[in-house]
Amino acid sequence: MQRRDAVKAMAAAVVIPPAFRWQDPAWTQWRVNGERVNRFMSEMAPIGRSPEGQVRTGFSDAVIDARRYATGLMRGAGLEVEIDPAGNIIGRRAGSSADAKPILFGSHVDSVFNGGNYDGATGTMCALEVAHSLNDQRYRNRHPLWVTIWCDEERGLTGSRGFIGHITTEDLAHPDADGRTLAENIRRIGGDPARVTAYRHEPGSIACYLELHIEQGGILDRTGIQIGVVEGIVGIMSWDVTITGFANHSGTTPMDERRNALLAASELALAVDRIVRARPGRQVGTVGRFTVKPSVQNIVPGEVSHSIELRDLSMEKLESLWEEIRAEGDRIMERRETTWIHEQRPTNISAISTPAIRDVIAESAGSLGLSTQVMPSGAGHDAQDLARIGPMGMIFVPSVGGISHSPKEFTRPEDITNGANVLLQTVLRLDQRLP
Amino acid sequence: MQRRDAVKAMAAAVVIPPAFRWQDPAWTQWRVNGERVNRFMSEMAPIGRSPEGQVRTGFSDAVIDARRYATGLMRGAGLEVEIDPAGNIIGRRAGSSADAKPILFGSHVDSVFNGGNYDGATGTMCALEVAHSLNDQRYRNRHPLWVTIWCDEERGLTGSRGFIGHITTEDLAHPDADGRTLAENIRRIGGDPARVTAYRHEPGSIACYLELHIEQGGILDRTGIQIGVVEGIVGIMSWDVTITGFANHSGTTPMDERRNALLAASELALAVDRIVRARPGRQVGTVGRFTVKPSVQNIVPGEVSHSIELRDLSMEKLESLWEEIRAEGDRIMERRETTWIHEQRPTNISAISTPAIRDVIAESAGSLGLSTQVMPSGAGHDAQDLARIGPMGMIFVPSVGGISHSPKEFTRPEDITNGANVLLQTVLRLDQRLP
Repeated sequence: MQRRDAVKAMAAAVVIPPAFRWQDPAWTQWRVNGERVNRFMSEMAPIGRSPEGQVRTGFSDAVIDARRYATGLMRGAGLEVEIDPAGNIIGRRAGSSADAKPILFGSHVDSVFNGGNYDGATGTMCALEVAHSLNDQRYRNRHPLWVTIWCDEERGLTGSRGFIGHITTEDLAHPDADGRTLAENIRRIGGDPARVTAYRHEPGSIACYLELHIEQGGILDRTGIQIGVVEGIVGIMSWDVTITGFANHSGTTPMDERRNALLAASELALAVDRIVRARPGRQVGTVGRFTVKPSVQNIVPGEVSHSIELRDLSMEKLESLWEEIRAEGDRIMERRETTWIHEQRPTNISAISTPAIRDVIAESAGSLGLSTQVMPSGAGHDAQDLARIGPMGMIFVPSVGGISHSPKEFTRPEDITNGANVLLQTVLRLDQRLP
Repeated sequence: MQRRDAVKAMAAAVVIPPAFRWQDPAWTQWRVNGERVNRFMSEMAPIGRSPEGQVRTGFSDAVIDARRYATGLMRGAGLEVEIDPAGNIIGRRAGSSADAKPILFGSHVDSVFNGGNYDGATGTMCALEVAHSLNDQRYRNRHPLWVTIWCDEERGLTGSRGFIGHITTEDLAHPDADGRTLAENIRRIGGDPARVTAYRHEPGSIACYLELHIEQGGILDRTGIQIGVVEGIVGIMSWDVTITGFANHSGTTPMDERRNALLAASELALAVDRIVRARPGRQVGTVGRFTVKPSVQNIVPGEVSHSIELRDLSMEKLESLWEEIRAEGDRIMERRETTWIHEQRPTNISAISTPAIRDVIAESAGSLGLSTQVMPSGAGHDAQDLARIGPMGMIFVPSVGGISHSPKEFTRPEDITNGANVLLQTVLRLDQRLP
């Protein structure tokens, strides 16, 4: 596929029959056990908790503890549990239709260093609650249902990349900060590194993938809307920029003889902000990393290195924003008698969620009396890998204050229950209506 | 005196008779020995030299070596050498007039860490060459002539402050980076810390002070003008600024919900530059130190701390520039929903050189066929302390490429000879014409 195109090829193939127009079947009234899913959350919370936040990173002992707890919940829901070669935990509920492809839903249990208990764990516990509810109701599903717990999400979507066959021999040999290779890490959590590179799920091999996640932003919390229907996961283009002027004594260098790298960088940072805001849409642009040399009171700054990062669902828009920023940067550097180099970092391709799946999520929320808003995900998720092999949809629940990757991360118990109900109803509807 | 007023009180008292209108006396044709003064420079160069530059800092062994060499040159010129309580070396040539006050001229021999051989040493070697030339000519001076080598110039004009009685008991107890107190350091180079606080030269006690120095900027080098007549030493006002916004995930925080400290700081840095340039004059304004937190690609910057530094001969202009910058900063912070605090650092008061002395310097240069330009000194010098007790004048010689505080610092031998000749002729003229 074209590297620059958003991932959306698999979405086109999906046709979902319309909503029930006869009297709704009994299962449309099924609800999750809100008390139970929030108990799952509070039982997960102490695992890897430190005074400075959750340290349930990568392949740590805390992650292994969290996986062990989740595995127990899978067995409690009657799922058949397996660890795949890439180290993902898959809990399967067999389907009645011989040729139906599986419906997958899940998330992850690892956290960033000093993170919270909600990013990843919320979606995972809601998926497990849905499995428990289906089991409580003795639901006879047509499609195989797979609850998936992807490994090592935060450091590069490792598990979901493995699931779609994107982990290479070089990846396996790559050491982490502690000097352990990915192969060693995968073996450590029960995967089989020898089989990883040959392991893959081909495009078209799944019925769909659903993921519930906390928003990690403040839109739902601020507007009071209960459910976010994710339009897609944004693409990311980014650059390392170095601006070079000339470092000179601040007292003896007249203003008109300065080649001030900080002023050029200041103009460029403001230009990125102005250019990104000037167009309609929800694209964002950020100068986040920013280092000045020599950074001394009485020396005119001679060099600034900084990042430029652009995110949007449309890769074409990102390309076009960058063209505008680059042209403006050239003008700034010429005017300020500075020079710049910009090295592009690896691009993350955006992943558009399947419109028909979005509609079913919105319909499910509506049937529960919950308000919804269609919105992009500004952060990355395993769902962007799954979108490469089949229809994909994501459900967002509110993050209080928009805070994430922080011990202050919090989602209210009622919002978790709401999200689990939307996930349950979406799974039921898709199971009934997907071919 | 008013803390905000430039130091210029002593200048008003000086009246110098007009230039010679009869046939010029023989001494107007006297010239220094250019080969000799440049030999002094090259003999000084190896002292404290490292592969990364001159390390003749503060009270180091290298400084003691440099002082020993300069003391030898003083004795060679027939001067009576003494180390004063503050650690300054003073070489005296007695005058014929019983009640004439001394004419002082000199500079320093210490350097910054990894500096060059020209900042300080040039003025000192030129002063010593003038003493040698006067001795060669068996000149009978009216005023006592004192060649002064001020100690520890680069870290705060220590010696000249001691000379005018501005070193306190607290200063003496203050340890340097190596843990040695100023008292220990002064004793180490032959001063007498027990007598420092009572030691002082009162306003009106000297006839004048002259200092030759490299420009440390690029104006003379670029314009090809041979001698700078220093109008004064600029005052410095500076602030530590902290701008606070809110650090947020770059992917999940919409553009219109950001409180971006870096964008506020960028606007402020550009405003400082714009406001300073908008007025006529040679004032400079610099944001030099600049630190962003957390400085991570995918986090909207939450805090920036930086310096603002303003320099000009007029303290009133500095005050007024700051008022304008502060008002603009308030507007920027309001618009960007950020806050700022600004803490003023200690102010360096500007020192205006004595107009009558400037005229004699320009006349001396003119008599030698050298081009001159009146210019401020953007850097600090011992002369600013001496201006508090008597008339002061400074002579600048060109710095190649305007480079200073660097091993690349360089002043051409012919420019050193020119400067020494201007200093010689200025000393002779002032000795004849000052009361």
